[in-house]
Amino acid sequence: MSRVLVTGATGFIGRQALAPLAERGFEVHALARGEPPQELAPLATWHRFDLLSPEAAADAVAEAAPTHLLHLAWYAEHGVFWSSPENLRWVEASLRLLRAFADAGGRRAVLAGSCAEYDWSHGLLVEDETPLAPATLYGASKAGLHTVGRAYAAEAGFELAWGRVFFLYGPHEDPRRLVASVARALLQGEEAPSSEGRQVRDFLHVADVGDAFAALAASDVSGAVNVASGEGVAIREVVELVGALAGREDLLRIGALPAREGDPARLVADARRLREQVGWAPRFTLEDGLRDALDWWRA
Amino acid sequence: MSRVLVTGATGFIGRQALAPLAERGFEVHALARGEPPQELAPLATWHRFDLLSPEAAADAVAEAAPTHLLHLAWYAEHGVFWSSPENLRWVEASLRLLRAFADAGGRRAVLAGSCAEYDWSHGLLVEDETPLAPATLYGASKAGLHTVGRAYAAEAGFELAWGRVFFLYGPHEDPRRLVASVARALLQGEEAPSSEGRQVRDFLHVADVGDAFAALAASDVSGAVNVASGEGVAIREVVELVGALAGREDLLRIGALPAREGDPARLVADARRLREQVGWAPRFTLEDGLRDALDWWRA
Repeated sequence: MSRVLVTGATGFIGRQALAPLAERGFEVHALARGEPPQELAPLATWHRFDLLSPEAAADAVAEAAPTHLLHLAWYAEHGVFWSSPENLRWVEASLRLLRAFADAGGRRAVLAGSCAEYDWSHGLLVEDETPLAPATLYGASKAGLHTVGRAYAAEAGFELAWGRVFFLYGPHEDPRRLVASVARALLQGEEAPSSEGRQVRDFLHVADVGDAFAALAASDVSGAVNVASGEGVAIREVVELVGALAGREDLLRIGALPAREGDPARLVADARRLREQVGWAPRFTLEDGLRDALDWWRA
Repeated sequence: MSRVLVTGATGFIGRQALAPLAERGFEVHALARGEPPQELAPLATWHRFDLLSPEAAADAVAEAAPTHLLHLAWYAEHGVFWSSPENLRWVEASLRLLRAFADAGGRRAVLAGSCAEYDWSHGLLVEDETPLAPATLYGASKAGLHTVGRAYAAEAGFELAWGRVFFLYGPHEDPRRLVASVARALLQGEEAPSSEGRQVRDFLHVADVGDAFAALAASDVSGAVNVASGEGVAIREVVELVGALAGREDLLRIGALPAREGDPARLVADARRLREQVGWAPRFTLEDGLRDALDWWRA
């Protein structure tokens, strides 16, 4: 039996990966700093550790004895995470975790990377082809961790896959982020200001992201894998769709906010590796996904 | 007054950087795990810490209160260091050190990188131009640390320079390495087997490397800087020169050892950044440097 240890298991993505891992036959173990939320408690065997403390990784791995690792934990405070020194502490914690996992005979590790590792002057982002040139400390920390982790996996003899996350939305999204902020405003009958939104991005519903990570963990694909839809959509279209689904297009204020300086025109993943090698496809269309997000904010 | 904290200060390079730092006006503080060797004791104010222990970096920085950091410490066990998991522990320790240094208001950090970060299918290695493609865990760990460290320095507001070390020789060299092994054999009247040695490399005497790091610390140049001569010499020529200087060419056995598989034909640094921007040039010619190394082994 394969036993997976999930970090960040109560987070935005992590909570969505637990059931899909179990569906794929894993015995699911999860890390949390405190008590898991009630709805997540039955989805895993929980281990209480804070990965930022020096001995936690070794102790957690000793307790859970995983064959597989799904490492999603990271510092994620909205806005602040791009430039926080906490990124360094998470690189350190992640390396300790990889060492502990390898020392205990772990076979396969899947870690969360980011589209922020790529050179954003390219509009189509292709694994092992588009140059990496992270413009932020967050992106650099992820890229640096992958450089070290990949070489370590090759030496220590375990498999390592690196799922690069793109743009996402869905239940439990930080209310200051795009889809959540528009959805909440409309549902409360308030105006929803947004920028012109001509930038094209690659969106996935977070439940699909969690499922994709579970599929990646269950596969034998190594290296970088874009976790994305492979389809570009203008931010503006996303906002308009939320407006239409909520029946409150009258409250949209597209263009009321300034465009973010230096925001690239187009960031879309090449998702062929995920589709063809991992054999995964999203379950949500953009419309179904946004409807689901609206339902969640309504409830 | 500028105060520099040197890590790895009793090591092969570090011990050669102490006097040159003082000559450039630094108040020199140095880290060591134990008592420093007698000949180094007067060259710095010594602080006893083991950087691999979690609190050491913060405590050392609090004690020494440096404006400058010269971080040379790393795992260096001959042969083993290329692939050891100790590399991960040194990435972790180095990130802790950078955080402590920045938190305490440090202004400028210089760290040791390696030519092993580059893609060795290129014969001329140029900073910010030759692609990085480390083939070893050691090279990947250095490259990953630089990726994270550089972005952190930009956020935290201190300068960071990254000195990429090439091939070196001189006093205190590990006796299993090329120049040291040939020199010792010849001085003991024993045969000195070596490979055909047609590979071209970029060599510096280690005293020049220590001096170059001191110059880099005293400069305001940021980013990657090759610490090298910029001149290629065939390994075979180096061996022949050691033979001639020792007067024991009769004991050379060039070609007696097999070539290392996959060893690239040519690895030479572009050293213009070091010469022109840092304003540094080596003091030893290859012949003078090898003579000095022989003298040291003789004594």
